[in-house]
Amino acid sequence: MSAPESTAAILLVGNELLTGKTADQNAYWLAGRLFQLGVKLRRVEVIPDHVPTIAEAVRTLAGAHTWLFTSGGVGPTHDDMTISGVAAAFGRRVIRVEEQAEAIRRFYGEFCTDGHLRMADAPEGYTLIPAFDSRFPVLSYQNVFIFPGVPELFRKKFEAVEHLFRGEPFHLRQIFLMADEGRIAALLEDAQRLHPGVDVGSYPSFTNPTYRVKVTMEGRDLAVVEAARAFVLAGLVEGEVVHETDVKV
Amino acid sequence: MSAPESTAAILLVGNELLTGKTADQNAYWLAGRLFQLGVKLRRVEVIPDHVPTIAEAVRTLAGAHTWLFTSGGVGPTHDDMTISGVAAAFGRRVIRVEEQAEAIRRFYGEFCTDGHLRMADAPEGYTLIPAFDSRFPVLSYQNVFIFPGVPELFRKKFEAVEHLFRGEPFHLRQIFLMADEGRIAALLEDAQRLHPGVDVGSYPSFTNPTYRVKVTMEGRDLAVVEAARAFVLAGLVEGEVVHETDVKV
Repeated sequence: MSAPESTAAILLVGNELLTGKTADQNAYWLAGRLFQLGVKLRRVEVIPDHVPTIAEAVRTLAGAHTWLFTSGGVGPTHDDMTISGVAAAFGRRVIRVEEQAEAIRRFYGEFCTDGHLRMADAPEGYTLIPAFDSRFPVLSYQNVFIFPGVPELFRKKFEAVEHLFRGEPFHLRQIFLMADEGRIAALLEDAQRLHPGVDVGSYPSFTNPTYRVKVTMEGRDLAVVEAARAFVLAGLVEGEVVHETDVKV
Repeated sequence: MSAPESTAAILLVGNELLTGKTADQNAYWLAGRLFQLGVKLRRVEVIPDHVPTIAEAVRTLAGAHTWLFTSGGVGPTHDDMTISGVAAAFGRRVIRVEEQAEAIRRFYGEFCTDGHLRMADAPEGYTLIPAFDSRFPVLSYQNVFIFPGVPELFRKKFEAVEHLFRGEPFHLRQIFLMADEGRIAALLEDAQRLHPGVDVGSYPSFTNPTYRVKVTMEGRDLAVVEAARAFVLAGLVEGEVVHETDVKV
């Protein structure tokens, strides 16, 4: 389904993220997952529970990326506004999905409230994708995939549909150095210039005693990534390389 | 300096955040800090190391908020592009700040490279604000404050200038409940409707055994926040309240 140039954005919805009451866990987790899947994550935005703001962000991000993943704002209370925001983004109405409402009624029985039933709402024109639990599938509208903010549910639901997003994998090489970042800046600039298909990154650490800079090379063409790695290694001074790895550390 | 309606945005710059190689620590920390300072954080964006993307985000976010805080992209290597991005946002040139270059030359001595000296670059029209270490002040351009991505430095530098951003404080009340979120949805909706100056939030937990929902009320007018709290408490059933606090938990 996915082409090598697939791109993605993540939209986190929730006042609690903007007041520092809650630390997001979903964007970092999904960023790593999308990298493994070969999908280029280009942008993350965090916005408040406010329908016009959600609508504008959804419209812009869904228009500029292959896929948009939203997190949060889909519970039973008044501050859950993501469904209304996605609907407004595309000029659609919010409708109640009767089969979902029925599943919720069965689940909550005599304790079922109007709040619970709001979780059966969807933008008109929605798609439901069977997930880990077919009673509560993943809701999408065109290229917008709507996930709950609770990290356990976010992960479980994304994993149930991630096969839809698999693309050409990225390859990553990391070199850990005991060297000053400024000293190797020219070398890395050359490495980047000579290997345009690779992203060369440089990340200093001031607290880890085992290294001072992590150099990363990543791209879809393994041969070019390896060429960039060899170029960097050849330009370093004996003893500067502390460690190398092919996986995220 | 700051009025009650001060707003802020945070812009995190760095490919490493979008590939899941690095978990951001700065946005969550600064979100909490801004809340304490009484500044309304309205948006966080995470974007790659790409000058046109940085420029567009800076222009948009700086135009829409009282203050914009950037994190990352200010080191000595080719992938550090925030200064160029901020300059491009306002159609300014990047210039070298000679007094800063001189401080860097003194610091690195014979090991000083062109990479190091890039850390003395600034958008023309910049301001330098003395920080914890006057050799390396905080760089700003109009309402854009430029911070390094390394968390230790980010925090230290922000704390050195945070007095510039102090506003009317927010007041927060939190009620932890052993109740189903759907059951209290109507109560919370009423609480929100009757207290428009307060943000009423509802956050379920599926993993913490001590409570099922956290209800938050926050706003600048303590009397109205307290009124919303009393309204919610009056609508709950005996024994549902597990715990209350006035601080972030």
